[in-house]
Amino acid sequence: MNFSSKLIEEAVGAFATLPGIGKKTALRLVLHLIQQEKSSTTEFAEALVRMRENIRECARCHNLSDSELCTICADTRRNETVVCVVETIRDVMAIEDTGQFRGVYHVLGGVISPIEGVGPQDLNIASLAQRIDEQGVKEVIMAVSPTIEGETTIFYLAKQLKPYDVQVSTIARGVSFGGELEYADELTLGRSIVARIPYKSDDDSA
Amino acid sequence: MNFSSKLIEEAVGAFATLPGIGKKTALRLVLHLIQQEKSSTTEFAEALVRMRENIRECARCHNLSDSELCTICADTRRNETVVCVVETIRDVMAIEDTGQFRGVYHVLGGVISPIEGVGPQDLNIASLAQRIDEQGVKEVIMAVSPTIEGETTIFYLAKQLKPYDVQVSTIARGVSFGGELEYADELTLGRSIVARIPYKSDDDSA
Repeated sequence: MNFSSKLIEEAVGAFATLPGIGKKTALRLVLHLIQQEKSSTTEFAEALVRMRENIRECARCHNLSDSELCTICADTRRNETVVCVVETIRDVMAIEDTGQFRGVYHVLGGVISPIEGVGPQDLNIASLAQRIDEQGVKEVIMAVSPTIEGETTIFYLAKQLKPYDVQVSTIARGVSFGGELEYADELTLGRSIVARIPYKSDDDSA
Repeated sequence: MNFSSKLIEEAVGAFATLPGIGKKTALRLVLHLIQQEKSSTTEFAEALVRMRENIRECARCHNLSDSELCTICADTRRNETVVCVVETIRDVMAIEDTGQFRGVYHVLGGVISPIEGVGPQDLNIASLAQRIDEQGVKEVIMAVSPTIEGETTIFYLAKQLKPYDVQVSTIARGVSFGGELEYADELTLGRSIVARIPYKSDDDSA
């Protein structure tokens, strides 16, 4: 593309370094900024730089954080004896959005994957074991992806946690709510029958 | 979405003000920046601010420019007696990309549209008339959209340019190259027959 302006070319190039943004989209974004007040571009840029300069890892759970401890670890109303182990901070957000979990998290930073050269030493595993004692953790919930790498990681972690007096569980797997049985894949459907659970009506919970 | 970080929330909000970028995409972009060096976010932000602070309108053709005159107006090899009138700077880029035009441009900034409240006084029309004399313009090529508003604008401009000794032309309209006749719309196909042109083989141009 011929921008006939070095400034535009550089700004388009900057946007185009972001994933999923091509030159055409980048140009559209740049032209949008030009139509806005100068201050809105400054504010946009400042928000990004402020975020990048100050964001850090929570010293306890490795979630992204604005300070030493993330808002979840710092929240005294959360039950720190139940730790949910996830792969990424995106998973933390997804589980938080459900509003169903009142424990705390531990972000591994990935899963064990020999093909991609990720071994246990590349993940936040040592700090998990350390937390078990310090926090008096009673239960560790494995909420990692249901893939071979995920299962391998759960297997490894469960072995590491054996010396501790802690219950290890995994999130339930089965047929999705709202999903139709005939469209569920064989493995999921098969497992959901093997791992069937006693029926409880809502009345029982009262 | 629950970001559990004010910094992330602000950065996501900043990206989400851009057109076509929702919260999910914004989060993906923010997490991408976090995975990169701090310097790459700073450079990204600086390119945008530098562009927004310094970009201006070419004093002659209203194209975007880094200095008083845009690179096209400043280029002495361009033929300034032929002016191509376009709606937006995007059209300038599109025509420049073809590499087929060696004249100069005049960016109107839109088309006359009573429905959207855009009248002739909202467009860069006065400065066009002024250029005719100053530059000794011989031909004005109307390259605006083939819409009712576009045709209205051409009609108005042609009337304004009547007192001047200047030829007014429009870009050719017809069936696209590579397009199939049966898929061309009726209006285009009908006009392309009425406005048929004498056949010239490539040999003739030699």
